[in-house]
Amino acid sequence: MLKLNEVGWLEKEKPLCGPMDALVRPLAVSPCTSDIHTVWEGAIGERTDMILGHEAVGEVVETGNLVKDFKKGDRVIIPAITPDWEKVESQMGFHQHAGGMLNGWKFSNVKDGVFGELFHVNQADGNMALLPPNVSVEDAVMLSDMVPTGFHGADNAHVSYGETVAVIGIGPVGLMAVAGANLRGAARIFAVGSRQICQDVAKLYGATDTVNYKDGDIVRHILDANDKKPVDKVIIAGGNLETFEQALKIVRPAGVISNVNYLGTGDFIRISRIDWGVGMGHIAITGGLMPGGRKNMEYLSNLLKYGKLDVSHLLTHRYKGFDFIETGIFLMKDKPSDLIKPVITI
Amino acid sequence: MLKLNEVGWLEKEKPLCGPMDALVRPLAVSPCTSDIHTVWEGAIGERTDMILGHEAVGEVVETGNLVKDFKKGDRVIIPAITPDWEKVESQMGFHQHAGGMLNGWKFSNVKDGVFGELFHVNQADGNMALLPPNVSVEDAVMLSDMVPTGFHGADNAHVSYGETVAVIGIGPVGLMAVAGANLRGAARIFAVGSRQICQDVAKLYGATDTVNYKDGDIVRHILDANDKKPVDKVIIAGGNLETFEQALKIVRPAGVISNVNYLGTGDFIRISRIDWGVGMGHIAITGGLMPGGRKNMEYLSNLLKYGKLDVSHLLTHRYKGFDFIETGIFLMKDKPSDLIKPVITI
Amino acid sequence: MLKLNEVGWLEKEKPLCGPMDALVRPLAVSPCTSDIHTVWEGAIGERTDMILGHEAVGEVVETGNLVKDFKKGDRVIIPAITPDWEKVESQMGFHQHAGGMLNGWKFSNVKDGVFGELFHVNQADGNMALLPPNVSVEDAVMLSDMVPTGFHGADNAHVSYGETVAVIGIGPVGLMAVAGANLRGAARIFAVGSRQICQDVAKLYGATDTVNYKDGDIVRHILDANDKKPVDKVIIAGGNLETFEQALKIVRPAGVISNVNYLGTGDFIRISRIDWGVGMGHIAITGGLMPGGRKNMEYLSNLLKYGKLDVSHLLTHRYKGFDFIETGIFLMKDKPSDLIKPVITI
Amino acid sequence: MLKLNEVGWLEKEKPLCGPMDALVRPLAVSPCTSDIHTVWEGAIGERTDMILGHEAVGEVVETGNLVKDFKKGDRVIIPAITPDWEKVESQMGFHQHAGGMLNGWKFSNVKDGVFGELFHVNQADGNMALLPPNVSVEDAVMLSDMVPTGFHGADNAHVSYGETVAVIGIGPVGLMAVAGANLRGAARIFAVGSRQICQDVAKLYGATDTVNYKDGDIVRHILDANDKKPVDKVIIAGGNLETFEQALKIVRPAGVISNVNYLGTGDFIRISRIDWGVGMGHIAITGGLMPGGRKNMEYLSNLLKYGKLDVSHLLTHRYKGFDFIETGIFLMKDKPSDLIKPVITI
Repeated sequence: MLKLNEVGWLEKEKPLCGPMDALVRPLAVSPCTSDIHTVWEGAIGERTDMILGHEAVGEVVETGNLVKDFKKGDRVIIPAITPDWEKVESQMGFHQHAGGMLNGWKFSNVKDGVFGELFHVNQADGNMALLPPNVSVEDAVMLSDMVPTGFHGADNAHVSYGETVAVIGIGPVGLMAVAGANLRGAARIFAVGSRQICQDVAKLYGATDTVNYKDGDIVRHILDANDKKPVDKVIIAGGNLETFEQALKIVRPAGVISNVNYLGTGDFIRISRIDWGVGMGHIAITGGLMPGGRKNMEYLSNLLKYGKLDVSHLLTHRYKGFDFIETGIFLMKDKPSDLIKPVITI
Repeated sequence: MLKLNEVGWLEKEKPLCGPMDALVRPLAVSPCTSDIHTVWEGAIGERTDMILGHEAVGEVVETGNLVKDFKKGDRVIIPAITPDWEKVESQMGFHQHAGGMLNGWKFSNVKDGVFGELFHVNQADGNMALLPPNVSVEDAVMLSDMVPTGFHGADNAHVSYGETVAVIGIGPVGLMAVAGANLRGAARIFAVGSRQICQDVAKLYGATDTVNYKDGDIVRHILDANDKKPVDKVIIAGGNLETFEQALKIVRPAGVISNVNYLGTGDFIRISRIDWGVGMGHIAITGGLMPGGRKNMEYLSNLLKYGKLDVSHLLTHRYKGFDFIETGIFLMKDKPSDLIKPVITI
Repeated sequence: MLKLNEVGWLEKEKPLCGPMDALVRPLAVSPCTSDIHTVWEGAIGERTDMILGHEAVGEVVETGNLVKDFKKGDRVIIPAITPDWEKVESQMGFHQHAGGMLNGWKFSNVKDGVFGELFHVNQADGNMALLPPNVSVEDAVMLSDMVPTGFHGADNAHVSYGETVAVIGIGPVGLMAVAGANLRGAARIFAVGSRQICQDVAKLYGATDTVNYKDGDIVRHILDANDKKPVDKVIIAGGNLETFEQALKIVRPAGVISNVNYLGTGDFIRISRIDWGVGMGHIAITGGLMPGGRKNMEYLSNLLKYGKLDVSHLLTHRYKGFDFIETGIFLMKDKPSDLIKPVITI
Repeated sequence: MLKLNEVGWLEKEKPLCGPMDALVRPLAVSPCTSDIHTVWEGAIGERTDMILGHEAVGEVVETGNLVKDFKKGDRVIIPAITPDWEKVESQMGFHQHAGGMLNGWKFSNVKDGVFGELFHVNQADGNMALLPPNVSVEDAVMLSDMVPTGFHGADNAHVSYGETVAVIGIGPVGLMAVAGANLRGAARIFAVGSRQICQDVAKLYGATDTVNYKDGDIVRHILDANDKKPVDKVIIAGGNLETFEQALKIVRPAGVISNVNYLGTGDFIRISRIDWGVGMGHIAITGGLMPGGRKNMEYLSNLLKYGKLDVSHLLTHRYKGFDFIETGIFLMKDKPSDLIKPVITI
């Protein structure tokens, strides 16, 4: 990213490696819709000459002298969120906001991202995980952001055995929310999205019903299909501020609306007073940035290692070579109908 | 209540007592702001010839043949919320919505309330509790609604040791939210309200700071007093739909906004996209009707029985005699400056 | 059950149907190891002339006049646990012990069980669920006890994404604990049991590793297979009081040992002081009777209805006709090597 | 500590201060029963020439170059538990066991303690908290171990509004468990201990009943006093492995037994099969080392800062001067009848 609305290639100095840090060479990366928001929507404000990217698997090139668990040559997964673990917020369980709201997000936000020849990982012992030998780098790069973000939506919704869940938005994050709800025991899953490929893949991840918002009001569609009964939980992984209004119309009293969608524009989220039970309906509305750090990478990668989750359905476009990163970025910008997620191995 | 905007006295048939039910004669009652909402704001829609009231302590007059734990002559506390306990929603832990949103609320909503010579209690074994001998009927009537509603606000906020909490609105429910936050270990409690008597009593219940919204922006006031740091939790016990906007500006990432205020007017609650962390700040927004039933009455009455909570500070106006119920209703409607809560013994 | 150690057939009066109750004719039943404990081990003390059985799907024959949601002819699932929902314990969330420890268990304990021509269900609206049209009665009868008990083990262990779980004991309950852990997102699951058929079926339900205790110390086996690292959670669904000692040797600090095994003999559970971290290791040891009631039946049956759980692997022996109940009981008593669970349709 | 059973004074080199660490000079310290266990019972094994002590308030003398939030001269509270925050276990919420069971405990365990002229604090930004100006060093030193350990007992017991709690053992930790239960809203608190001064102080912290185990069976005493009903929760802060057997006899189904007592001797904790509901009573048995780190110190110190907790009742013996540390140690060893806790300012 050269500046707003302009991407290109930069030469930069090798980053400094502090005593607890590591430098990593990318083996596989994937562009994310957030990168598009950053460049073309100014989502995080003005940035100039900043390297993009926050989804990567790589090889350790250098480690600080206090790093204990990793060494040069290790193949590692790096999460999009790499907090400072000693912060009070991390100690309280919300490392995503260590040092301030969303400050656990560093790559391509407050420092250079992973789309370089080398990138810097703070607190390496806390923010990298070894790549399991039987997991491919292409698959593993989905663990940086897509899997933990989608699964976080299902986690925050406290999905439990036999519940009915609606997932609104089934891009790669929403598809992982479907998979995450399924892996928490949901029985019926409504997947709301318009693209055929996403609907097809949603079924592979456990969706029992797909709903196309282009076919009419999703509220009516879902309530009709569900015998006029509300669903237990709603996970929002797409849409905009109005989506919350729809979500409230389909969720039960004491249900949860769990957002993992970056809300890029608008002033106020629409929470209808009446639908929210005049303030007394016990409907929790929450939303959160994905959990980062080593532990989450280790545990989520176990799902791939032991065959419980197959992320390869997401990888519709595969490239080899550093130069194809730009191709990937423009794919995410243009979203052709056959795209879910591109991956570039290097 | 004769009809909207009109109260008066009615003669009614004695209610039927089903096999699990009880009929109770009130010993002490208290009018509630909700009664005012019902009559003069049409909060629950049109109602005609309905007896008002949902806060009462009484004496059992008759019990159904399947009632096991209560008998004629027992002095009992009756919660405002008396759900059907066998319903699926009750089994899921949200009995307040057993049979539908807010359907656990029956008195002066879907049936006659407690301001009569006799009133009906459904599922008596599940919805009444014995009055402890050392607790007065005046104090105990605060357990029907004020204590459980205020405490529910603190409970839903998950207040824990050493936290800083803001309670917005310090009428009787807000004061009990202050007491409830204090009894969950809050360290610093900002109590937001304008009336002197409420501010004074808030301090008795554990508030460390009082804030008068008539003295300027409460957001700036609280942040200034708190070294520019956000508070951990906000409990909303007054105000309107805009109050949520203020609450979001003072709460920390991963904090909670917990509403127990009946939201009577307006379309949409104001949740600022930016203050909510663009959907990723882990700020939970929730609100719920008080928990009813026997268990809650038994446990909360233990706090009075063992001297851990003194509700008498709330009882600013005491009357004796059935006819004074009307006096109490108009007190709640007019809210004189020295009023917190009236109680009428019969 | 005629008396301890003796089973046979009894003629009994038709049970009385209270106003909230129902009488049900069984369509499919399954004998349980608990029935064996009851008759041949005196697990619940002396009982004479008591009808056995607590796993049944049936057809409603009669309903009390206060029953609202069921009528004659409805096909229903009946859980083994049918509590009184208005009790304080039910209101607190542990209906299993409504009215006293384990008192939610009524069938073939404090009243006649389901192995009769008719049986009685208390609080029918709260304790039965409609059989989904696309679920067979044979499959559905696994919802009475096997599924909720096994799943409860996984629930109490708070299994979450990517965890490593050991399930000790893989009879039908243990197999459902494997399935339950899998449906909560476990990555690696060690299934401990000796019978080949159980090991084979465990793999179908998500076990990644099977361990035969006849092949040597399961502690060493599991730790060796897991790179000397402890597992996150242990679910005990078989064994005896010594099993807890083994469980403590394989679980991590802050892990959970979750028991769903009926502990029939012995005085003290063996909790090693050292392995329990000298009292400070945050290892929770818990165990609980399955949750009963309508809600659990409805939600768990959704897993069958929507194809998320296939219980048919458990049903190794199928019979048709009332008289085969006795065959089934003796199968459970003798446990031939090819048995997991018998089911008798009537 | 020179070796087992022998204490004395040592000259040692000044410890090294790593880039994230600090060196601190003690201002107030307090010996703990754990120090006695370490020296005279060999609780943590053989140790030679190790400086004792893990409860201290001090002044920062030196900070590493990566320390951001503290500087020379700052007056700080140091918790007994100072974990490595980047470890996987810390990320999972159990920093006490970061790097292995109990490994968060470093002072006078795996490195020198605080009873020296200087001591070393790892990860200073994560493991120290500023002393609030209006809190005395003597009071604040109770925050290192006594307050968080006692409160952890109440936290793990999930004490909530109106519950009945028994605290077994009312030395300084048990007294803080009483205060902690009270600050979580317990109504009735049974405090079990024999010394008069402890019983008196227990009442100041919220105990409603005191029970002297020298006056007979505490099980019978508590059940008699509680109308034969079990208590909701038991916190164990004293006694031995048999104490668990008593605790199980007084706790309700679905209750919690929460241990914060260091269990120094014996093989197996006594958990009666029958009292534990034959494995199905939902009685959770748990125990854990206190939470350390900066966040906990900040939040707990707020309770002192805002007058919600007065720890001065614990401080029965006050000394001034480094040499009195030895006096304090022998006081804790000999436990005279008027002792709760000694504090030495330096």
